[in-house]
Amino acid sequence: MKIRQSLCTGCRRREVFFFRPYSGQRLCKKCFVESVEAKVRATIAKYNMLDFNDKIAVAISGGKDSLSMLHILAKMELARPKASLTAVTIDEGIKGYRDEALEIAAAECQKLGIEHHVFSFRRLFGFTLDELAEKAWKTDEKLTTCSYCGILRRRALNVAASEVGARKIATAHTLDDEVQTVLMNVFRGDLARLAKEKPVTDDVHPKLAQKVKPFCEIPEKESALYAYVKKIEFQASPCPYSSGALRNDFREIVNSMEEKHAGTKFTIFNTLERLRPALYAVVDTSQYADCVECGEPSSGGLCKVCELLKKMR
Amino acid sequence: MKIRQSLCTGCRRREVFFFRPYSGQRLCKKCFVESVEAKVRATIAKYNMLDFNDKIAVAISGGKDSLSMLHILAKMELARPKASLTAVTIDEGIKGYRDEALEIAAAECQKLGIEHHVFSFRRLFGFTLDELAEKAWKTDEKLTTCSYCGILRRRALNVAASEVGARKIATAHTLDDEVQTVLMNVFRGDLARLAKEKPVTDDVHPKLAQKVKPFCEIPEKESALYAYVKKIEFQASPCPYSSGALRNDFREIVNSMEEKHAGTKFTIFNTLERLRPALYAVVDTSQYADCVECGEPSSGGLCKVCELLKKMR
Repeated sequence: MKIRQSLCTGCRRREVFFFRPYSGQRLCKKCFVESVEAKVRATIAKYNMLDFNDKIAVAISGGKDSLSMLHILAKMELARPKASLTAVTIDEGIKGYRDEALEIAAAECQKLGIEHHVFSFRRLFGFTLDELAEKAWKTDEKLTTCSYCGILRRRALNVAASEVGARKIATAHTLDDEVQTVLMNVFRGDLARLAKEKPVTDDVHPKLAQKVKPFCEIPEKESALYAYVKKIEFQASPCPYSSGALRNDFREIVNSMEEKHAGTKFTIFNTLERLRPALYAVVDTSQYADCVECGEPSSGGLCKVCELLKKMR
Repeated sequence: MKIRQSLCTGCRRREVFFFRPYSGQRLCKKCFVESVEAKVRATIAKYNMLDFNDKIAVAISGGKDSLSMLHILAKMELARPKASLTAVTIDEGIKGYRDEALEIAAAECQKLGIEHHVFSFRRLFGFTLDELAEKAWKTDEKLTTCSYCGILRRRALNVAASEVGARKIATAHTLDDEVQTVLMNVFRGDLARLAKEKPVTDDVHPKLAQKVKPFCEIPEKESALYAYVKKIEFQASPCPYSSGALRNDFREIVNSMEEKHAGTKFTIFNTLERLRPALYAVVDTSQYADCVECGEPSSGGLCKVCELLKKMR
């Protein structure tokens, strides 16, 4: 009997479509899709991310990761009638980039019958990111565009969750994002962030929604492939501000190590998970105070958002 | 008055010879040499590496790092009449490589008036590394040449220390070596090694000499420059077995990050030092048992050396 090497190792019936180097699986399209969905469900359960009656704000950018996640969460919601999803998109105000993404995000939400709300930097902070980037040239601002965009985006997401009445925010950080962040924090020596960046944020302040990352164990490549197989439209071009980002260096490093040693990303991710209890013992997990200006949670005195906007005005 | 930009920031008298990017110092030859020596003395004090009456086995390979270290320790010994140094070299048996290094090492020891002893894999284990590497092709040995050379070299160093009557072994691991090791252990998820690889090994077994690393805060580049300025002869060619080593990937990664962000190596090194107390809380710091075959300290059952030699015989 001739053995058909090209049959799926899952169903043993259909043709192989995808080889997963870190597990040795050779999967057909259907089994691949099911394996990603099963992994997301398992991740949600493992980290106790969601409750049966959660109102969840799903942060979608219009990229492959967040739209793949939205599809999977929408499917899961069907079996959980007391849970509800609302999609939220932060419009930083990046000309020639975010506009296209907004259209795609809105269209996907309509297809899935999910409410979609857009929150703009302009409305929340009075400036678009383009305007801030231009102003930064004229001040002594040392933060990179990605850094202050991150500060404002975090705040915007919290406002968004609060306005749509959600106590949880799901973001589509992939395994790759998480591992890049780990290495960046090791290279920067930032033990506090190494401790805090995790699949579920600590629920530390009544004003802050809890952030959960259902894709934290999904490799970016598989997230993209999921979108492709499910024919999800997404924005493929990268943010114009991202080209100089430190993160790109780490993406290359990690991808080249994964190429040589399949499973490296999971190893690094799991190392951090094992290390985390110990990290809490050496870092300052200080409590939040209210910002003296806006009243939002801050690490003390003026919050980072107010500090940034003050400089920019 | 015209300001001479090219004057040493240390003595403000002599011409600049070396720019140290992570500190901003521009040093003349003399101040550079003194700064390296001062750093080594400070490192020894900081980690409590040596006592005034220590008998120290200095592991020298014949390369720049170990010979620079030997010179500095020899100079320090002059002020500590109760301390004594003996140089030891492990001859793994690598044709066309170690022979040259042995001659250089012996010549430098003679110049400095330091006793020098050579310990060969052939005498200690019955095989040269060349023979083992050849045998490995014919067995199912999965370890790389560097890995089993490391296992045997560690044992050889302990035997060497014991035979010359030393309770301490000084090895010339540089800042670069230490940082590469940190990253390798993060990528491999080896928390136990992450905890244990440190400037001074825990003194856990009466049969094991304590290993100290006086160069652990000296960048490799400065170690090389020290040898150059002090006209120390050293072997410059790399080990023929090292070309495929994983360590080379990490060397490149770290050097390219240091190039972009001066001080990265120190940041990573210090991150680990801050993390170490916490690491001990999550790893198994199990005690040693005696190897059932050779009686040397082992993590239990057969020691790694006996296990390796058994396969090779």
